[in-house]
Amino acid sequence: MKFIPIGGIRLATIAAGIRYQEREDLVLMELPKGNSCAAVFTQNAFCAAPVLVAREHLAATSPRYLLINSGNANAGTGEPGLLAARQSCSLLADAAGCDAEQILPFSTGVIGELLPIEPIQAALPSLVSQLDEANWPQAASAIMTTDTQAKLVSRQIEINGQMATVTGMAKGSGMICPNMATMLAYVVTDLAVTPELLQQALELAVAPSFNAITVDGDTSTNDACLLVAAGSSSLPKITNVDDVAFHALCEAVTEVCMVLARAIIKDGEGATKLVTILVDGAVDEVEARQVAYTVAHSPLVKTALFASDPNWGRILAAVGRAGVQDLVVERVGIWLDQVCIVRRGSRAEDYSESRGQAVMDQDEITIRIELGRGDVSSRILTCDLSHDYVTINAEYRT
Amino acid sequence: MKFIPIGGIRLATIAAGIRYQEREDLVLMELPKGNSCAAVFTQNAFCAAPVLVAREHLAATSPRYLLINSGNANAGTGEPGLLAARQSCSLLADAAGCDAEQILPFSTGVIGELLPIEPIQAALPSLVSQLDEANWPQAASAIMTTDTQAKLVSRQIEINGQMATVTGMAKGSGMICPNMATMLAYVVTDLAVTPELLQQALELAVAPSFNAITVDGDTSTNDACLLVAAGSSSLPKITNVDDVAFHALCEAVTEVCMVLARAIIKDGEGATKLVTILVDGAVDEVEARQVAYTVAHSPLVKTALFASDPNWGRILAAVGRAGVQDLVVERVGIWLDQVCIVRRGSRAEDYSESRGQAVMDQDEITIRIELGRGDVSSRILTCDLSHDYVTINAEYRT
Repeated sequence: MKFIPIGGIRLATIAAGIRYQEREDLVLMELPKGNSCAAVFTQNAFCAAPVLVAREHLAATSPRYLLINSGNANAGTGEPGLLAARQSCSLLADAAGCDAEQILPFSTGVIGELLPIEPIQAALPSLVSQLDEANWPQAASAIMTTDTQAKLVSRQIEINGQMATVTGMAKGSGMICPNMATMLAYVVTDLAVTPELLQQALELAVAPSFNAITVDGDTSTNDACLLVAAGSSSLPKITNVDDVAFHALCEAVTEVCMVLARAIIKDGEGATKLVTILVDGAVDEVEARQVAYTVAHSPLVKTALFASDPNWGRILAAVGRAGVQDLVVERVGIWLDQVCIVRRGSRAEDYSESRGQAVMDQDEITIRIELGRGDVSSRILTCDLSHDYVTINAEYRT
Repeated sequence: MKFIPIGGIRLATIAAGIRYQEREDLVLMELPKGNSCAAVFTQNAFCAAPVLVAREHLAATSPRYLLINSGNANAGTGEPGLLAARQSCSLLADAAGCDAEQILPFSTGVIGELLPIEPIQAALPSLVSQLDEANWPQAASAIMTTDTQAKLVSRQIEINGQMATVTGMAKGSGMICPNMATMLAYVVTDLAVTPELLQQALELAVAPSFNAITVDGDTSTNDACLLVAAGSSSLPKITNVDDVAFHALCEAVTEVCMVLARAIIKDGEGATKLVTILVDGAVDEVEARQVAYTVAHSPLVKTALFASDPNWGRILAAVGRAGVQDLVVERVGIWLDQVCIVRRGSRAEDYSESRGQAVMDQDEITIRIELGRGDVSSRILTCDLSHDYVTINAEYRT
């Protein structure tokens, strides 16, 4: 994992023993004074206690610390869960010398179990003492749950002859179908940016990345994605939407989010294939995404992908049930990469099983669906459904 | 399979070799002159060629024969597929001595391959010669694809001291999420009923049965459900919606459909558990079904069910992402059978893992979700997601 640290952003990790034994599960990230912070959170109605507390704290003041645990989501835990999230902030405030409101808590892991506060309390002093700008890889590993790969990436941009950096990490593998956010992602730049522009940059970046991926259609209760502008660069603060530096930043943030989102799908639970679903010719974005997600969530399409079986009838059946009003099937086309499988609503005359098989045998596949209704396109990333997905999720708690 | 034949309804089966070797795959059902026939078909935009032809023929005249093949769905096959469906009707018309429009074709099996007409043509004379009222069990077996159990049931009702019968068969195991219809189901009564009342009886019966089940959320291109009133009973024809005989018939048809729908889910691909999802306290039916289907289709809920893991956080997360506007989580309750797992939006105080486990260990489970918003309820049937589901669907074509 090649990454570039960000001045003023220090991290620490520790094995607190919250759930996992013998692995790091608690991360502290220190943000410099005067940073700007933008965030998007899950739209799941049962959002977790730390999401509620983080939203509240963000509205009140600018954050100085992020406290992230894996192994326990502190979701569906009601008042005791909220209390535990608040307590973890108060305890850290004491240890770090700041206000509790300057701390944002994040949790990921099993839903419905109370977050134990003692192991966190015991770990905090040592965690605070170990903060270091170089600890990104350890942090990217410690936030993992069923992930098999840590997800960490940096991009540099040149602004007026000077380099600026965007570095991000994410976790996520199952319960992935973010809705305005993803599992957990933390993206930081050394640039100084006003909060409004930073939020704009984040929302731009999230739409084609974390909001366009699905492993299993299950939107998590704990999704959160933060974008922090540390302001440690000597470049002037970005305050104007027309500033070329803002556009360069947006591009870099989007690229970092795209790389992380792709890494999440590549590491999707049990995934053996990375599948892009591109819907063209839709009337609007809603319809395009509806078709894309229906295909992406079809267990029959997903198992055919796992089997490398060009069973394109399952794709066609999924398009047909996607609820598009007055779909004219004679205008529908479907391609596996460059191989046309369906033309004018039925099997393409020049299609052969061997050509379909050649695409299906690849690790990365694009399924393109032309609806022939308009000029709107949408692209999402997904993966297949394998035996390992069942194994992982039938055994996850045991 | 206990069943009661219906006077005037004769069936025949044969191993035509359409796709499967060494098993029967072609069924002919003869209906008596003067029957009434009601039908519902798939809402999938890519409905199969036989569905198009059956709809057309039904609109033109009263059917005398149903020709049903398994192994090939004749869907996504365009004009050549339509031609093949029409040809099979013409060929049978010649063999049986009727008009092609008096024949309804049905197909189920792999999507996207052209239906071979030669094996059907070769089989027709022998098929016609073997028609017999006793052949229901053979027919129920011959229409199966990935089903492991034939699905055949009868109910009798007493009308004015005389018995009338409803007998039905169905097939279905995967690609099950019927929308106004199911895979294939044929229900017949010996009563005489007007077509309008028969359609009413069918739609009443389908709503809580075939339209309230899901294995994998994938609506088939070939779903069809027929209700035939043979009129062979000596009881007077049912012509009035207020006739007590009509109510008795509706009840019996609904019961037959419920038994068949339940059999489809019990025989769901790879299914190890039969799961009822009951949503109470919804504002309307749409919302209740939306929550029920979101839970039923969640791969994480389904794999937890397979593992007999009372991982109720996954149920809660699915309810939370079901898109209910302004859901007040503090009013939400969730039960596994009689065990309350979530009360007022978080883990019930009296819940214990061992009580949840005891329910999860059962073969049949009811998940009840109280939304606390209104007084509308909805009930659907589903099953778990197991290794065998992946195996069956990763290997189905090979």
